[in-house]
Amino acid sequence: MPLRSKDLLSIEDLTLENIDLILETASSFEEVFEREIKKVPTLRGRTIINLFLEPSTRTRTSFEIAGKRLSADVVNVSGQGSAVAKGESLKDTAQTIEAMSVDAVVIRHWSSGSAKYLAELIKPPVINAGDGWHEHPTQALLDLYTIKKEIGKLTGKRVAIVGDIAHSRVARSLIAALNKTKAKVTLVGPATLIPMDIDKLGVDISYSLDDVLEDVDIVYLLRLQKERQSENLLPSLREYSRLFGLSKARWQRLKNGVRIMHPGPMNRGIEIDSFVADNEKALIREQVTSGVAVRMAILYLLMGGAQVE
Amino acid sequence: MPLRSKDLLSIEDLTLENIDLILETASSFEEVFEREIKKVPTLRGRTIINLFLEPSTRTRTSFEIAGKRLSADVVNVSGQGSAVAKGESLKDTAQTIEAMSVDAVVIRHWSSGSAKYLAELIKPPVINAGDGWHEHPTQALLDLYTIKKEIGKLTGKRVAIVGDIAHSRVARSLIAALNKTKAKVTLVGPATLIPMDIDKLGVDISYSLDDVLEDVDIVYLLRLQKERQSENLLPSLREYSRLFGLSKARWQRLKNGVRIMHPGPMNRGIEIDSFVADNEKALIREQVTSGVAVRMAILYLLMGGAQVE
Amino acid sequence: MPLRSKDLLSIEDLTLENIDLILETASSFEEVFEREIKKVPTLRGRTIINLFLEPSTRTRTSFEIAGKRLSADVVNVSGQGSAVAKGESLKDTAQTIEAMSVDAVVIRHWSSGSAKYLAELIKPPVINAGDGWHEHPTQALLDLYTIKKEIGKLTGKRVAIVGDIAHSRVARSLIAALNKTKAKVTLVGPATLIPMDIDKLGVDISYSLDDVLEDVDIVYLLRLQKERQSENLLPSLREYSRLFGLSKARWQRLKNGVRIMHPGPMNRGIEIDSFVADNEKALIREQVTSGVAVRMAILYLLMGGAQVE
Repeated sequence: MPLRSKDLLSIEDLTLENIDLILETASSFEEVFEREIKKVPTLRGRTIINLFLEPSTRTRTSFEIAGKRLSADVVNVSGQGSAVAKGESLKDTAQTIEAMSVDAVVIRHWSSGSAKYLAELIKPPVINAGDGWHEHPTQALLDLYTIKKEIGKLTGKRVAIVGDIAHSRVARSLIAALNKTKAKVTLVGPATLIPMDIDKLGVDISYSLDDVLEDVDIVYLLRLQKERQSENLLPSLREYSRLFGLSKARWQRLKNGVRIMHPGPMNRGIEIDSFVADNEKALIREQVTSGVAVRMAILYLLMGGAQVE
Repeated sequence: MPLRSKDLLSIEDLTLENIDLILETASSFEEVFEREIKKVPTLRGRTIINLFLEPSTRTRTSFEIAGKRLSADVVNVSGQGSAVAKGESLKDTAQTIEAMSVDAVVIRHWSSGSAKYLAELIKPPVINAGDGWHEHPTQALLDLYTIKKEIGKLTGKRVAIVGDIAHSRVARSLIAALNKTKAKVTLVGPATLIPMDIDKLGVDISYSLDDVLEDVDIVYLLRLQKERQSENLLPSLREYSRLFGLSKARWQRLKNGVRIMHPGPMNRGIEIDSFVADNEKALIREQVTSGVAVRMAILYLLMGGAQVE
Repeated sequence: MPLRSKDLLSIEDLTLENIDLILETASSFEEVFEREIKKVPTLRGRTIINLFLEPSTRTRTSFEIAGKRLSADVVNVSGQGSAVAKGESLKDTAQTIEAMSVDAVVIRHWSSGSAKYLAELIKPPVINAGDGWHEHPTQALLDLYTIKKEIGKLTGKRVAIVGDIAHSRVARSLIAALNKTKAKVTLVGPATLIPMDIDKLGVDISYSLDDVLEDVDIVYLLRLQKERQSENLLPSLREYSRLFGLSKARWQRLKNGVRIMHPGPMNRGIEIDSFVADNEKALIREQVTSGVAVRMAILYLLMGGAQVE
C-alpha cells in the first residue's frame, strides 16, 4: 500500500510524502485529459460505491468521472429512497456494501465522523467526500494541487481563508493541509464564525479582510451558507458582503500574482463579486479540473490499481 | 466537423445536407440494434453529461442508451440535489462541467434559450434535449427519420400537427424540420392554443380536425398538458377530446396509408384513443426506436467519433 | 433457453431443475468475486433497464452490480420524474422500453402482478424484483443459495419464517421455494399478520415463537413495517418485539448449528436484537453476497449470455 492508511478520512491520515505522491500521480493523470481517449484501464473490473447521503452534484460527478476514467464501475447511491431513509443504520449499510464485494466506498454524510465510522466497519478503502463540519480532504488536496501547479511551492506562501470557518469542513481540511506544507494561514471572518480556540492550530486570525488584503498570495473564499443569517450568526448578508466579500475594489488592492480560489458553488455577489470570479486571477475552474485528477490519483493509490499506462 | 454548427440547439442550426447526413448515419446505427452486441467503440473514453434540470425519463434514457451504445461514459446530473438547486447559476454549472474535460453536454431545461446560453459558454458540443417552450430538435429529427423510413420522401407530404401548438417545443422544432424538407404542414387545435402569428412560418391553420382529416398523410398528435385546463385555455378535457382527439370514428375516415405519430408520453383517451394508439397505423414505437439511432448519430457527428465499424 | 420461462416472475416459473441450475451458475459467478477483476464479458453490449418504481437501494444496487459484473450496460429508471409520474400507463412504459431494443428489464413495482403484466407485453426477459405483496423471487433464490452453501441440502430442514407474513412478498416467494425443495416451513407471527388460509400451502402455523424455537434449523426474520401499528394490526412495536423478536435469551435456546436470516434492512431492537444480528450464527451478510451472484446467474441464464470464462 503506497499510502500510510487504507482510507482517506482526514488530512491527518497522510504524511507529507503521501501528499507529494498523490499530487504527482494526479499530474500524470491530468495528462490523460488531453488525449482523445481520456481513459486508462487501471481499475477495470473494480466496483466503486458513491454513497452520497447528503446532496451534492459537483463532488459526486467529479468522483464518478474519476472512477470511470480509471475504467472502474461506479454505482451511485443517494439518500433519497435508500435503506438509510428506511431507518437502516450506517453500520448495516456498511455491511451490506462490503458483502457486495465492493472495492471502494466514497461517502458524503451529514454527520461528522461518519466516514471514520464506516472505515472501521469495512475492509475496502473509504474516501471521505465530506462529513458534516469535520473534513473534506479531497477538496484540500485538489486545492494544494492547484496552488502548486499555478504558483509553485507552498512553503512560506501566505493564504487567507475567508468566511464561515466555524461550519466549514473545507476550511478544516485546508488548514491541516496547508500547515503540513508549511504555508502561512490567516483565517478571516466575523468573530461569530471563527471558533475561539482555532489559533491552537498555528494559524493567524483576523476579523478584517482589509487588514490582510495586501499581504497574501492566495485569497481562498468560502461559500457562505445563507442559513447562518437566520441563525443570528450574521447581521445580514449585505453586511457580510460589505465586510468580507471580495469586491472589485478590494481585488484592485491585491498584490500582483495573487490568486483567488473558491470550492464552489459560489454565491456571486455575496462572498465574491462576479468580476472577480470571472477574472484571470481566479483559479476556480482550475480547481474543478484538478479535482478529477486528484480523485483519480486517490482512487488509484488506495485501490492499488495496475500500472498507469 | 461534418455538421455546420458545433452544437445542436435548434433545427435552424442544420442545413438540409446536415439533416440528410444525420438520418443516413442513424440508419447505419439502427442496424447495430439487430446485432447481439449492440455497441460500437466509436466514443470510447469520452464523457457525456446528461444534464436534466427538468424531469424526463424517456428522453434521458434514450440519450443514455445512445451514449452507452457508442461506448461513451454517460454521467447523469438531475435537478434534484444539484448545485443548481443550491442557487448556482447555469453559467457556473457550465464552467464546472467544462473544467471536468467533458466531451459533450445534453441539456434539458425549463427555460427557453438555456441550451443556447450554455453552448456559448463552453467549447464541447451542447445538444438541446428540450428548453422550455422553445425547441426539442432531436425529437423533430427522430420524427423525420421515422417518416422517411416508413413512408418515404417527405417533399409534398401533408402533415397535420394537432393540439397545443402554443406551448409545444416539439411542434416548434417539427414545423421547422418539415418546412426544410418541403412537407406541407397544417396546424390544428383550438384558437386559444395556436399562436396568432404562427402562419408567418408558412403553415396552414385549421380550427377543426374534421376539416383536415381526409387530406393528410400524417396525423401528429401532441400531448395535452392537463394544466392548460386550470389556466382556462380549455373549456374541459372532455371538450378538447371531443373536438381534437383522434377517436376511432375519426381514424376510420383517414386515407389509406395514413400514419399516426405522437412524441409520448400519451394521454390515452384525451388526444388519442387507445384503439388508435395500438393500431398498426401508429408509428409511436417506431419513433422511440428511431430516437436512440438518431441520438447516436448526433452524438457521433458532433463529437467526431472514430469510424463506425 | 435453459430456463422454462422467458421471465422470472415468481417461484412457480421455475422447475426444481431450473432452481438447481440457477444455484450452480451462481456458485461459479461467486468465484469471480475473489478475482482482482471481478468481471466477465458475457453480456457485453447488452442493455438492462433497472425500472424501480418503488424506492429500493439494496435490491437496485445488487442488480446494478450484477449487471455490470456481466459487462452489460445498466440504465436506472426510478419513479421520481419518470413518465409514470406524468401518468403514463405501465403499458406505454413497457412499449417504450421494448422499442429501445433493451435486452432485459428488472422491475420493482408497488402493485402485485405488475411484473407479469409487463412480461406479457414485451419480448425481452422481465425479472420481478418485488411486486406489491405478491412475490420477490430473486430474494427467495438467494436465500436458498445461502442455506445450501452454509448448511447443505434443504430437504427436511425446518425453517421458521417469523413476522408479518400477510404483507410480505419475501415470505410468499420463500415459502414457494422452500416447498419445492422439500424443506419444512413453519410460519410464526401474531394472528393478525398471518393469512387465515395460508395452511393450504402445506406449511405449519404457530402463534408463538417460543413454541418452535427449539425445533428449527433456520430462523428467518421478516422486517416489521412500522406502519402495521398505525393500521391497528399490532398492539405496539414493543409488544411485537417481546413476543416475536429474536432476543438474546431466545437465541440461547436455539439448537447448535441453527442459522439466523433476514432479508434486510433490519429493524434492530424490534424483530432482531443487535447481539443476534452481529453474531456468527447470522447469515445476513452472506445473503447479500449471494444476492449479487444469484442475480448474475439469473441475468445470464435469461439473457442467454456467451459462455462464462
